[in-house]
Amino acid sequence: MTLLYEGKAKRIFSTGASDVLRVEYKDEVTAGNGAKKDFIEGKGRLNNQITSHIFNFLKTEGLNSHFIEQISETEQLVKSVEIIPLEVVVRNIAAGSITKRLGFEKGYQFEEPLVEFFYKNDDLNDPLITENHIKLLHLADDNEINALKEAAMEVNAVLVELMNEMNLRLVDFKIEFGRTSDGQILLADEISPDTCRIWDKQSDINFDKDVYREDRGSIIETYQTFLNKLEAR
Amino acid sequence: MTLLYEGKAKRIFSTGASDVLRVEYKDEVTAGNGAKKDFIEGKGRLNNQITSHIFNFLKTEGLNSHFIEQISETEQLVKSVEIIPLEVVVRNIAAGSITKRLGFEKGYQFEEPLVEFFYKNDDLNDPLITENHIKLLHLADDNEINALKEAAMEVNAVLVELMNEMNLRLVDFKIEFGRTSDGQILLADEISPDTCRIWDKQSDINFDKDVYREDRGSIIETYQTFLNKLEAR
Repeated sequence: MTLLYEGKAKRIFSTGASDVLRVEYKDEVTAGNGAKKDFIEGKGRLNNQITSHIFNFLKTEGLNSHFIEQISETEQLVKSVEIIPLEVVVRNIAAGSITKRLGFEKGYQFEEPLVEFFYKNDDLNDPLITENHIKLLHLADDNEINALKEAAMEVNAVLVELMNEMNLRLVDFKIEFGRTSDGQILLADEISPDTCRIWDKQSDINFDKDVYREDRGSIIETYQTFLNKLEAR
Repeated sequence: MTLLYEGKAKRIFSTGASDVLRVEYKDEVTAGNGAKKDFIEGKGRLNNQITSHIFNFLKTEGLNSHFIEQISETEQLVKSVEIIPLEVVVRNIAAGSITKRLGFEKGYQFEEPLVEFFYKNDDLNDPLITENHIKLLHLADDNEINALKEAAMEVNAVLVELMNEMNLRLVDFKIEFGRTSDGQILLADEISPDTCRIWDKQSDINFDKDVYREDRGSIIETYQTFLNKLEAR
């Protein structure tokens, strides 16, 4: 089992099967593109469990992903895909970068969900890009861009409903996609409080990484409470 | 004649007619959103003459603008429009901000002209925005966005051909549009070496504001040479 890739939050290993990878969720947490960084025991376990739960749930709703199965507290098996270097962000409510970038007030409810693309490129600081940029950078063609937008909107609809049942509001989230060896586009990476903004409907409590970004409490308690809600649903 | 608006490069005055404005081109030149600023005698005259020439030429090619007529060396009359707060940028060749933002090499020829929208908002530093942002910010609707893109591509096609005849390459340019009182969208603002990048086909000489931005010679000589070429065509 060779280590193929190590990112901020995960390690990816090969397995005996060429089209299957093992993902290990790490106890590291970062913010501001790595500017803030900590080792927090239990964080990997929580994100692996939450991501596994959510990918399983999406599957029951007919939305496929690279996820195969959870194999330990901190590990899961996934289909091997070539990641498309795009962060696909869906926003239901304004928060985070878009409030600074475009002046929307935090909490502003968009008339319809907003899909944004960011170019995954550390040297360039993951800039916002348009569909024309995506094509000129040869990251995806028109059909693929439409497939990404459609999939992102479907994931959003299912997750909004899921959070709603938990008395939570899905503010925004980031997903990534990959191509299988036969060119199919598949939802990949993770869906966890690291990659979503989730607000309590009654209080102003966050169930997401803003707790860490803004030093507003224990990320372990926050993520554990979220996982408990998810499992109790 | 009331001064209605004073920008970095122009003053706008009312006239006796409610739907006609007088534009006076100033001798000021700025770069980097006002970070660099100079008073350069003759610059207003040159940009007024060049813009008048280009808007007249576009009209002969069937492309209307707010331009009515040049009335003095530094002044022109234009139709009154409400400016849409968008900078519409068309790029044929990579240069300037897009090389830093997305990593395209300076001089890279795009497979097709790239249209970008920037939100004219000094507080936000004129950020790049997508079509979805434009709609959510209520700056323009779908039909208007399509009209802007189409008009920008038509202006580009005509200007590329014009520059080609002058042995020049149109690298990129920025235009703005306004709405008339009856809701018609009209090309507005100016088209000059302040708002275009223009490269000589044989040498690496610029006929644009990069000469000023990068301290590479006299802006007056550069713009005068460009005007001479335009008039000699």
